[in-house]
Amino acid sequence: MSRYILKIDCQDEKGLIYRISDAVFGYKLNIVKNDEFVDKEYGKFFMRAELSGEINKDEFFKTLKTMLPEGANIYIGLKDKKNIVLMGTKESHVLGDILLKHYRDELNANILAVISNYDDLKELAEKFDIPFFCIAYDAVSREEHEKKILSKLQELKPDFIVLAKYMRILSSSFVEQYKEKIINIHHSFLPAFIGANPYKQAYERGVKIIGATAHFVNNNLDEGPIIAQDVITVNHEFDWKDMQRAGRNVEKMVLSTALDLALEDRIFVHKNKTVIF
Amino acid sequence: MSRYILKIDCQDEKGLIYRISDAVFGYKLNIVKNDEFVDKEYGKFFMRAELSGEINKDEFFKTLKTMLPEGANIYIGLKDKKNIVLMGTKESHVLGDILLKHYRDELNANILAVISNYDDLKELAEKFDIPFFCIAYDAVSREEHEKKILSKLQELKPDFIVLAKYMRILSSSFVEQYKEKIINIHHSFLPAFIGANPYKQAYERGVKIIGATAHFVNNNLDEGPIIAQDVITVNHEFDWKDMQRAGRNVEKMVLSTALDLALEDRIFVHKNKTVIF
Amino acid sequence: MSRYILKIDCQDEKGLIYRISDAVFGYKLNIVKNDEFVDKEYGKFFMRAELSGEINKDEFFKTLKTMLPEGANIYIGLKDKKNIVLMGTKESHVLGDILLKHYRDELNANILAVISNYDDLKELAEKFDIPFFCIAYDAVSREEHEKKILSKLQELKPDFIVLAKYMRILSSSFVEQYKEKIINIHHSFLPAFIGANPYKQAYERGVKIIGATAHFVNNNLDEGPIIAQDVITVNHEFDWKDMQRAGRNVEKMVLSTALDLALEDRIFVHKNKTVIF
Amino acid sequence: MSRYILKIDCQDEKGLIYRISDAVFGYKLNIVKNDEFVDKEYGKFFMRAELSGEINKDEFFKTLKTMLPEGANIYIGLKDKKNIVLMGTKESHVLGDILLKHYRDELNANILAVISNYDDLKELAEKFDIPFFCIAYDAVSREEHEKKILSKLQELKPDFIVLAKYMRILSSSFVEQYKEKIINIHHSFLPAFIGANPYKQAYERGVKIIGATAHFVNNNLDEGPIIAQDVITVNHEFDWKDMQRAGRNVEKMVLSTALDLALEDRIFVHKNKTVIF
Repeated sequence: MSRYILKIDCQDEKGLIYRISDAVFGYKLNIVKNDEFVDKEYGKFFMRAELSGEINKDEFFKTLKTMLPEGANIYIGLKDKKNIVLMGTKESHVLGDILLKHYRDELNANILAVISNYDDLKELAEKFDIPFFCIAYDAVSREEHEKKILSKLQELKPDFIVLAKYMRILSSSFVEQYKEKIINIHHSFLPAFIGANPYKQAYERGVKIIGATAHFVNNNLDEGPIIAQDVITVNHEFDWKDMQRAGRNVEKMVLSTALDLALEDRIFVHKNKTVIF
Repeated sequence: MSRYILKIDCQDEKGLIYRISDAVFGYKLNIVKNDEFVDKEYGKFFMRAELSGEINKDEFFKTLKTMLPEGANIYIGLKDKKNIVLMGTKESHVLGDILLKHYRDELNANILAVISNYDDLKELAEKFDIPFFCIAYDAVSREEHEKKILSKLQELKPDFIVLAKYMRILSSSFVEQYKEKIINIHHSFLPAFIGANPYKQAYERGVKIIGATAHFVNNNLDEGPIIAQDVITVNHEFDWKDMQRAGRNVEKMVLSTALDLALEDRIFVHKNKTVIF
Repeated sequence: MSRYILKIDCQDEKGLIYRISDAVFGYKLNIVKNDEFVDKEYGKFFMRAELSGEINKDEFFKTLKTMLPEGANIYIGLKDKKNIVLMGTKESHVLGDILLKHYRDELNANILAVISNYDDLKELAEKFDIPFFCIAYDAVSREEHEKKILSKLQELKPDFIVLAKYMRILSSSFVEQYKEKIINIHHSFLPAFIGANPYKQAYERGVKIIGATAHFVNNNLDEGPIIAQDVITVNHEFDWKDMQRAGRNVEKMVLSTALDLALEDRIFVHKNKTVIF
Repeated sequence: MSRYILKIDCQDEKGLIYRISDAVFGYKLNIVKNDEFVDKEYGKFFMRAELSGEINKDEFFKTLKTMLPEGANIYIGLKDKKNIVLMGTKESHVLGDILLKHYRDELNANILAVISNYDDLKELAEKFDIPFFCIAYDAVSREEHEKKILSKLQELKPDFIVLAKYMRILSSSFVEQYKEKIINIHHSFLPAFIGANPYKQAYERGVKIIGATAHFVNNNLDEGPIIAQDVITVNHEFDWKDMQRAGRNVEKMVLSTALDLALEDRIFVHKNKTVIF
């Protein structure tokens, strides 16, 4: 018996659950887990179900399409390992944490490659037998640089791209091609401390908590839909280097949480916010 | 249009959601919110739905009964204020917090009375115009004492009894009469520090976190199904009095959370554990 | 034997602790608790000690003055209850929490009065026998309004003014007269969501954590030195009203923590940040 | 200029700080950071200072010895990297996290070796060029097994031994030889769930928080002095495998925190509790 993930979002209306569960029943699928949510502000219905059984995905898709409101988004996927590409720059704590999880076979994903604009992370990637591609940007224009990365990505075909402390801003056109597919970790509890060196900003402001935010990347820097956040407490004894050091544990944890959610198809994006089951 | 809460738990089987949503649809009810969970260890299905519409509750109950597996528990209630009785002894922080919430009309309940074995709390209850009954236990046997309380409770008919730092152990026969209706706050992160003076125990053990646990009361002291828990950090500077003082904030917060969940019919009890939507 | 709090901050230099403990020893004082911190960025020394013994405060002050670097701030106070004034507007959750703590004699302070620009809180203040002064601002200019409040404050002479959800911005000249004496609770984890309705802002941004910040009030709205912060997690099921409701528990807890720190003379302010022992 | 750590604990008496700071001043040492604490229950004084300057450690020790109460413990050490040995069994998440920190040069320690009773961790240790010693216990008695480990440890001379999920109980005589030198991570918020498979115990009990505890190892299993603890929330959807998976992040974080504290000489042990600066 196969396991499927069914995700639906559409305009809410009476009888939706009835019709969907009717279809599920008709295809002899068992509902292992089911979550629903209605955003009342927008009258929008969200549903994610884990199903077991054997189906023709295309047929099931068509059946659902005919019974759901126009404009409904329907996703039917096998519950399986996804393919990801990691991108980094120089800092290795987040990258290393993901590589270790993968090494222990605790990550629901195959890591296809590490891409970086420097070669500092090469040694670490290769310790874990992950192909490493250094695509430097010193001699080329930004456009040229992104073109090279995109060409590599088109070859690798990842389901998700994980920015594991990748410290370069991606252009709109780049982001556009991987909508809701690029996950970034920002080292502050957004929307506080957008931009460069959030720990320095946090230190200057004298906050008593610092945090990290994992989000999908969109056109506006640090303003994409938030997937996961967490914080830790700090005090006057922390200078910004201490905050950075302490914050690294949270960055690892938050990105790890967000990545798991993405890999299990648990995230919907709506109006720059996430609905997560 | 009325709002109803529908709660079902029964043996899991294929098509349950389909059949239930069929019935819901047949009664022209709209599903405002819906949660489901299957406990795989026991093959048990849990569901809670908020419905809007107009129905004959008894008829709807019968319809559901016929289509669900034998032994299914079905609860259909109006989404409305519940009636509660608070019981306390001498400490007023938890009681005061609930009285204040009630005063601000933020509690989804009517407080019918405060019952206590001392009269220390009388003044506070009366400040907020809540009837106060002191049922002292000094001159009577435990059995006699509980009989008096039970007689008062039978008169008041509360949906839930909240032990707001009520410091006397209730007998099995008392508890039996209000199964899953008595909520207690214990001042430790259970199962650590069962019994008397958990803060002193925590201090002796030198823990770095202390907490509080809200649970339904069953026959075994501090061993009932856990509804909510939370903790705060402490350090070597805290003696047990400091822990007690700091812990009071958590006790208030945890009992408040648990009470809200109970008042909104969000809690199922199964095998001494809670399923909470 | 009396208990004193000694607070010193001054330019750091070698031998400071030696000289201070020499003076303490000379005055036959016992050091019950002692904390020190050096801000390396500014070369500034901070110290707070709890001392027991009997001294002439003025003499001790003079002795310390002569041995400390120029510009040193020295505070010597009896460890005793302080006097506070609470200011509110309409919301009662934070005010009520402080009144309850005071009622239970758990607050290290006398509450001299509640001052409000509306009379919604009158009933609650009077339940707890605290003088209530409604100073409305509808018929008067802002300047006139603040003059009336200031006149009342000058009469009451509080050590601290607690803005328990006081929803009006205080002018620079008002704030100037109570520097590091006015504590405010802001319902977000500052610096995120400065200004009006932070819960709505948090909802719009789709954050997964919300919080509260207690800070001293300075000339710039929501930008004063932060004393305490805390957060709780939220999810897509929370609309902004739900966030507000959940946030109230954190607001109460954070203001309560900050107030305790102030009442025990534990806070230093330096460069718009706090050093807290 | 060298950096030293000075740790003193002794019976409390008047003038201690004065005398100590007199000696520090006499040796022309600068106090960079200073913490003191008096355990009032036992009248015990604790102090830790970071000093900069140049001294003859033995002489300074003698000077302090003569001026402190009898039985005083005095530790003077260079602020420097310590040497540690990691011990593991099969699980690699905690070990991997420490190896990664060491690889990034963020750990204030040299890792001398990984010792394990299985060879599952060999590959990982060698990826990071750390000597790995498998000391199996299948063909030998427990006494024999520990003798082999002790012989290796005597050769390596570590300052601390870190049990990174080492799943065998150490004998009293082993522990005795490394008093306050062996740090263990237990996968529960002790004292809840002592012994085997705490996650299963937590699942059975239906708790809403799970945690981890780092502690020094003493003669009684899971009862040594607690150094650090943290928790995360769980709910009814977690089976014990899910709890284990989620708990691993906390285990890593808590052991990492405890290890940092040990490596910086911040921990005192007194009456089976820790005082931590």
